[in-house]
Amino acid sequence: MTNSRVALADLEQRDDFIARHIGPSDADTQVMLQTVGADSLDDLINSTVPANILIPNSLDLEGSHTETAALEYLKSLAARNVVAKSYIGMGYYNTIVPPVIQRNVLENPGWYTAYTPYQPEISQGRLEALLNYQQMVTDLTGMDIANASLLDEATAAAEAMTLCKRSNKLKSDKYFVADDVHPQTIDVLKTRAEYFGFELVVAPISELSKHEVFGVVVQYPSTTGEIIDLDAIVKQAHDQKALVCVATDLMALVNLKSPGECGADVVVGNSQRFGVPMGFGGPHAAFFATKDAFKRTMAGRLIGVSIDSHGKQALRMAMQTREQHIRREKATSNICTAQALLANMAGFYAVYHGAEGLKRIAGRIQRLTSILAQGLQQKGVKLLHDTWFDTLTLVNPPSPALPPQVGTGVVVNFRQFANGNIGISLDETTTRGDVDYLFTVLLGEGHGLDSEQLDQWVMNEGVNGIPSGYARTSTFLTHPVFNTHHSESEMLRYLKRLENKDFSLVHGMIPLGSCTMKLNATAEMIPVTWAEFAHIHPFAPKDQTVGYQAMIQELETWLVEITGYDAISMQPNSGAQGEYAGLVAIRRYQASIGQGHRDVCLIPSSAHGTNPASAAMVNLKVVVVECDSNGNVDINDLRAKAEQYQESLSCLMVTYPSTHGVFEQDIVEICNIVHEFGGQVYMDGANMNAQVGLSKPGKFGSDVSHLNLHKTFAIPHGGGGPGMGPIGVKAHLAPFLSSHVVNPPEGIPQGNSAVSAAPYGSGAILPISWMYIKMMGAEGLKKATQMAILNANYIMQRLSAHYPVLFRGANGRVAHECIIDIRPLKAASGMDESDIAKRLMDYGFHAPTMSFPVAGTLMIEPTESEPKEELDRFCDAMIAIREEIQKVQDGVWPKDNNPLVNAPHTLDDLVNAWERPYSQTEAVFPKGIHPTAKYWPTVNRIDNVYGDRNLVCSCPSVDSYR
Amino acid sequence: MTNSRVALADLEQRDDFIARHIGPSDADTQVMLQTVGADSLDDLINSTVPANILIPNSLDLEGSHTETAALEYLKSLAARNVVAKSYIGMGYYNTIVPPVIQRNVLENPGWYTAYTPYQPEISQGRLEALLNYQQMVTDLTGMDIANASLLDEATAAAEAMTLCKRSNKLKSDKYFVADDVHPQTIDVLKTRAEYFGFELVVAPISELSKHEVFGVVVQYPSTTGEIIDLDAIVKQAHDQKALVCVATDLMALVNLKSPGECGADVVVGNSQRFGVPMGFGGPHAAFFATKDAFKRTMAGRLIGVSIDSHGKQALRMAMQTREQHIRREKATSNICTAQALLANMAGFYAVYHGAEGLKRIAGRIQRLTSILAQGLQQKGVKLLHDTWFDTLTLVNPPSPALPPQVGTGVVVNFRQFANGNIGISLDETTTRGDVDYLFTVLLGEGHGLDSEQLDQWVMNEGVNGIPSGYARTSTFLTHPVFNTHHSESEMLRYLKRLENKDFSLVHGMIPLGSCTMKLNATAEMIPVTWAEFAHIHPFAPKDQTVGYQAMIQELETWLVEITGYDAISMQPNSGAQGEYAGLVAIRRYQASIGQGHRDVCLIPSSAHGTNPASAAMVNLKVVVVECDSNGNVDINDLRAKAEQYQESLSCLMVTYPSTHGVFEQDIVEICNIVHEFGGQVYMDGANMNAQVGLSKPGKFGSDVSHLNLHKTFAIPHGGGGPGMGPIGVKAHLAPFLSSHVVNPPEGIPQGNSAVSAAPYGSGAILPISWMYIKMMGAEGLKKATQMAILNANYIMQRLSAHYPVLFRGANGRVAHECIIDIRPLKAASGMDESDIAKRLMDYGFHAPTMSFPVAGTLMIEPTESEPKEELDRFCDAMIAIREEIQKVQDGVWPKDNNPLVNAPHTLDDLVNAWERPYSQTEAVFPKGIHPTAKYWPTVNRIDNVYGDRNLVCSCPSVDSYR
Repeated sequence: MTNSRVALADLEQRDDFIARHIGPSDADTQVMLQTVGADSLDDLINSTVPANILIPNSLDLEGSHTETAALEYLKSLAARNVVAKSYIGMGYYNTIVPPVIQRNVLENPGWYTAYTPYQPEISQGRLEALLNYQQMVTDLTGMDIANASLLDEATAAAEAMTLCKRSNKLKSDKYFVADDVHPQTIDVLKTRAEYFGFELVVAPISELSKHEVFGVVVQYPSTTGEIIDLDAIVKQAHDQKALVCVATDLMALVNLKSPGECGADVVVGNSQRFGVPMGFGGPHAAFFATKDAFKRTMAGRLIGVSIDSHGKQALRMAMQTREQHIRREKATSNICTAQALLANMAGFYAVYHGAEGLKRIAGRIQRLTSILAQGLQQKGVKLLHDTWFDTLTLVNPPSPALPPQVGTGVVVNFRQFANGNIGISLDETTTRGDVDYLFTVLLGEGHGLDSEQLDQWVMNEGVNGIPSGYARTSTFLTHPVFNTHHSESEMLRYLKRLENKDFSLVHGMIPLGSCTMKLNATAEMIPVTWAEFAHIHPFAPKDQTVGYQAMIQELETWLVEITGYDAISMQPNSGAQGEYAGLVAIRRYQASIGQGHRDVCLIPSSAHGTNPASAAMVNLKVVVVECDSNGNVDINDLRAKAEQYQESLSCLMVTYPSTHGVFEQDIVEICNIVHEFGGQVYMDGANMNAQVGLSKPGKFGSDVSHLNLHKTFAIPHGGGGPGMGPIGVKAHLAPFLSSHVVNPPEGIPQGNSAVSAAPYGSGAILPISWMYIKMMGAEGLKKATQMAILNANYIMQRLSAHYPVLFRGANGRVAHECIIDIRPLKAASGMDESDIAKRLMDYGFHAPTMSFPVAGTLMIEPTESEPKEELDRFCDAMIAIREEIQKVQDGVWPKDNNPLVNAPHTLDDLVNAWERPYSQTEAVFPKGIHPTAKYWPTVNRIDNVYGDRNLVCSCPSVDSYR
Repeated sequence: MTNSRVALADLEQRDDFIARHIGPSDADTQVMLQTVGADSLDDLINSTVPANILIPNSLDLEGSHTETAALEYLKSLAARNVVAKSYIGMGYYNTIVPPVIQRNVLENPGWYTAYTPYQPEISQGRLEALLNYQQMVTDLTGMDIANASLLDEATAAAEAMTLCKRSNKLKSDKYFVADDVHPQTIDVLKTRAEYFGFELVVAPISELSKHEVFGVVVQYPSTTGEIIDLDAIVKQAHDQKALVCVATDLMALVNLKSPGECGADVVVGNSQRFGVPMGFGGPHAAFFATKDAFKRTMAGRLIGVSIDSHGKQALRMAMQTREQHIRREKATSNICTAQALLANMAGFYAVYHGAEGLKRIAGRIQRLTSILAQGLQQKGVKLLHDTWFDTLTLVNPPSPALPPQVGTGVVVNFRQFANGNIGISLDETTTRGDVDYLFTVLLGEGHGLDSEQLDQWVMNEGVNGIPSGYARTSTFLTHPVFNTHHSESEMLRYLKRLENKDFSLVHGMIPLGSCTMKLNATAEMIPVTWAEFAHIHPFAPKDQTVGYQAMIQELETWLVEITGYDAISMQPNSGAQGEYAGLVAIRRYQASIGQGHRDVCLIPSSAHGTNPASAAMVNLKVVVVECDSNGNVDINDLRAKAEQYQESLSCLMVTYPSTHGVFEQDIVEICNIVHEFGGQVYMDGANMNAQVGLSKPGKFGSDVSHLNLHKTFAIPHGGGGPGMGPIGVKAHLAPFLSSHVVNPPEGIPQGNSAVSAAPYGSGAILPISWMYIKMMGAEGLKKATQMAILNANYIMQRLSAHYPVLFRGANGRVAHECIIDIRPLKAASGMDESDIAKRLMDYGFHAPTMSFPVAGTLMIEPTESEPKEELDRFCDAMIAIREEIQKVQDGVWPKDNNPLVNAPHTLDDLVNAWERPYSQTEAVFPKGIHPTAKYWPTVNRIDNVYGDRNLVCSCPSVDSYR
């Protein structure tokens, strides 16, 4: 076979990646089409998606590129960024990612492809890592409890504001913001406060006593580097009955008295400098710690200790019932994710360095800052403050104080204040040589300073920038986990031991409805850790971020083409954040046309819990629209409600395809009705992966959507974050997108306050989606959508003889996922969806989504990336479980002692005495599971109630494991 | 704690890496010193190492560097290499490493830290991968059997030459080498032939009939690109009773009739272009395939199929008893390693692409070559041949045919022949755009060629460069493993499934005596996959490899300082290859001073089997020197033998510290005796890791050593290769080091024939050792050696109450490893070293080295990287096993049914009926093993005899697994 008759184009494999991304082969596809009764993929789509939204032509995008070609081009863009020495600070610092963590966590699919640990029995590894993170935050902040991370420091501060409000009986709606808090934090607080109806008082902290406020936020050390008198501030605030939020920096706390010891009520900040690259602003894990008294008011995920069915210690997410989807329209937060991967990295950084290592690092930073301060003062440079940890503000420094420009060698970036002051923040990477170079940059050649002499003086005089009483005396990181894994071999083995406890995409499919666990291809992940993307400060001068801007510009152009919208905002760093940003744009727009009074948000009863929560956060009143028995929006009810509220209708929030997993046929009419009565349409993009290449929400009636880049566009879930939720809007909403107070994105009106800390959200992971689109091209993206729908319909077809399928759309088709109803089975057998979920673990699968959007159901989404063999393996397991349920139904096995209620089974079960009505082999090697590929849950079923009742969210003592 | 009293230097952590590399903490070190009865590390060393070899001062090397600083500096060196478009060919080609393979194999410690699969029960993953490799080679070459890789194509051709000699009854000592074989292959054949006493006839193949030869080697396609008439050549050779070796290229064989179908007896080549970077010459896996009739004559490792104690199919290395250390002085090969990691990568490349994918790739290469050939011929350029796969030789092309120089944009490299001809080899990465660019480079602007038109013509005319009868018609890669894992999700899961079957350093210590499984730090591995190191052709112009040369120069300088030698040759790409190169240098030197008749090599009875094998390969007669009961060389016997052979004494080969794990006190005298009688001292560097920073062989009497960079200097073992074995020599031997016929290294006399295919051996892994030395510095290197000795003595101390320690040196100390004697236990209990080794798997350990250098013993080497906790865990396991043996001894358990003879235990054992005199818990969770960290062997004990008797070395059919 010499290929002599094959066209060169067919040999060129430009579309090679498409077949790598999509699971089923062409031959398998034919078999599957037959199973679902369709002649072709187009035929399947035509019978599934409403004709009036199907786009006639293919997307106007480039053709697909190979991995090599895409990487080569992206590298050329990256090369246009300048990796500078950043002294900008403001919450973002150069850091050293320990190589063993970079390669074995950040670059390891075993970590980054895992899902949120909703199934704790197969997630004990990252739950332990997140517990380490919580312990680290608790220790360093001196607080009682910390959560498992939030999106960024600014939104964490916003969450703290609402906690203060809810926890304070004071009638005030005023919140005091010290004016030396990081400006981007103040910007986000402004946005949040506006729609909560809070009045922000931004002023020097000395003016606190003039205001009756429910809370106050200060930065410690301040944004200009001062170590403020936190004791005094807390006392003053508490005397006024105000609660105190302290925004702080974990590295500074290594050397400083902790906020907890000063009496703070909430402590927030960014853990980025604990070994997570700056990445142009994210993703990083923000932390949030508080007092025991407020623990049940905290937003975000909380990892807690519980026990399993054998009484063995086991971890899981605590107080899940408290999550936002329960609170819905009473919500003050719509947080439904975290930054798990980055929190884990930060926690591992602490594990690897331990307290002693951190003290050396923080000690070096502070010492070098002292040398810099002393040298500058000797030369007559005036400093704004006489206290510091790592940051100095130079008051109107003399004229040679200009950083070298790009292209003239080492590039250094300072913080440039409008008043001519300059801010300099040192960090872990700063050397004495860097300080010498700073002297030269600031004072010119021949300054005559000697950093060694300065060091002697600093050491002899005991000058360190820490005011009396603020040096840290309390211990931290005393738990063994922070005092064991300090050699690389030990660290590597610890990381692998945790990794191997967890089920991730490297083991098998994770068929989570609404969560889209598709392939996260290696080629997509590679650019994330390129220095040119990883080590860029979010507030670097624009001429140093040309590559980032070009990449983002291309990605925006593609997303505009894919969605049919007119503009994209990359700022929201999660899907829920995108919802919030979209609703803010709607409210700003309506206010701009004199319709600011419109405050009703229609939401179908099938909606995801974040929808009403987001609506509540922008002060919209939620009115629920009913669904019919097929899971579709009840058009009559919609029309009635829209008419009823026509004077106050702000918008409809609708997910498409619906959260019920079907393409509603009337979606165009739904949009029309809302517009008819003066409302805007917010189309939740959670299920956009069923539309890409087939239909464009911006063209068939929607005004705004968020896009889950971490679902539809291949960013991995990271074991529970990061995510990215940019929004697309029609032209009339574009002037109301979020800008940024420090580094405003092009094309968006400055002055629009922000929703996230960084101008482009989590910039470092945008290359993943860029690569995905570049490699798939128009043809690949469309085919991916078609195959996702085929895979879902194939599973539906195979399972429908065994389980009732709850909702179907036109022609009996489902969209990209399907819901099976477990309630009839439960009535007949006592076995519920949770028993099936846990039993699936024994078969080597992660469970589908449980009880969402309908209690008592399982929602299955295979994605296009799963091959037919894996789909069949899953269907076989589900059918086998159905047979097991039948045995319970038939009384062969008792309801309280059978393979389902006892699932998952562990190695302990094998070696403990076995007195059950089924065999050990049936328990752990149910049909089709070969021992060499067996995945083992490491604990038995976890008792959630026990854990919530006895809430422990710190690392258990070693003894307690025994 | 503010660090105000701590000197800045102490905060700077320049030595941070040392503590990351070394396992025990300072506190642990104190405890361990106490256990072994030493006051300090210096005290321990003074009581262990002979005073007359200890160096008085520390090494004259830089201080240690942090990971960041070392990487930064190395990056600046790498930046001085030019990543060009290479069209040089000659066995090395640009290739695309599939990202999923790069990240999850080459960059994954789960793969690269594994050891050679001598313990197959915990190595089934890479054994399967290697079997895939063998199957791929067998299929593509059309031969009956292939081994699991050799070092490089040239040495594989040398092994083929000896196979031909041994398998041919013809009396001839002449070997015919077609003059269009790759020149570096001919160069290596010359070296080998000289010392085997073969006469090489290098001539056009047309002259074959003029010579009576035992064998012939041809290149197919030839080095200039011709597809030779292999059928005719084989017929001619066989008619003359000569055997035929075909050096070939796997990618070409996708399109060409296989050598097997043409009747070849041996087929060799380089599998590099199957997804392994060029890396300046290596490491890559060379392949070696032959006929069934010759399978027991093959050199190298062979993976075969056998069964375990339950009759289940299981893989292991076949015919191990046949290895070189058995053959010793009768050896014709000293091969004792392979290129496992690279063979696995090449095999995975085939798994990922499958036959169809490979056909597209090879088809594209051949089509583009045809377009290039047609275009050039249209323009009057004359081609040397009218057949081709990927390579064209242009006969005296016109003058614009000059490649652009460095710095003028895209750099293209051609093969430049001395006669003015130019060679161009296309590869997987070549695009039509590249061919267009080649036209411009070769013909100048305005050449008027249109590659699309040319393609039309080529396709219509059916021109493809393949002579009639040589297009491939036979199938290949039909086994399911090559037809399943074609989507990235499937490939990733397959890789992870195999990885997780294997025990590696990520699970725990691998205490292999003589093999030094120390930490392979991530920072050391990172540069290996930098494009500037990975994508450099070994024969690139010197001005494009300035970075490589600078890095190698620095490494050589450091190795000179560490060893006390005067010059280093980087060429040998394994330890055994280093032995060979060193002995060749000795023989050349002695010939140069009229002592060429010296042909006796003294070797202590304790020597590693490669020593006599290497000696035999350079035609030295081995005379064994006895050892005394302490394991030391019997000085009297040495003196007697040296005197007896004083007229013919060539050299002594001695390992230091000895293979018995002790520092012989008389090493200086030993060297003196040899010199006194006119001999040279070859000091085997296998145990150099016990000398670095303490003593320098080049200063206390040795003339030459090889250095195992993969043991002493942190290159990982890769699951059974790569290795690197550069040699250090005293000044008088330096003129006799190996040069290279194509790209001669600086400072070595040109014309000295080579030992390896590439000038600097496996250049791509040299950055690992460079990083190791840079980060450790003089202080760290010395401390590593001291700690390796402490760790060994600590284990010896803890085990000595339970097992007899076979050899000790002065003051009862061992060196960096210790041997425990199992023979008395076996006599008493029937349990042997193999039972202990297998039982250790149940405890979660890889066994120590078994029965080397003394049968019936275990040799334990912990290395400096293992923390005390891991050493204790190992000692606890060994002591627990001793107690188990006692139970057998005491009759509590029968000799044929106890946890030792039944070890290792698998999951199958747990679920099968259990009727044994010990419990399942005792079997699989012996004390100290927590279920969540349990490592599971995937098969029970393997039957080696069964496998050797029923030799199967190809992938078993899927049915046979059932």
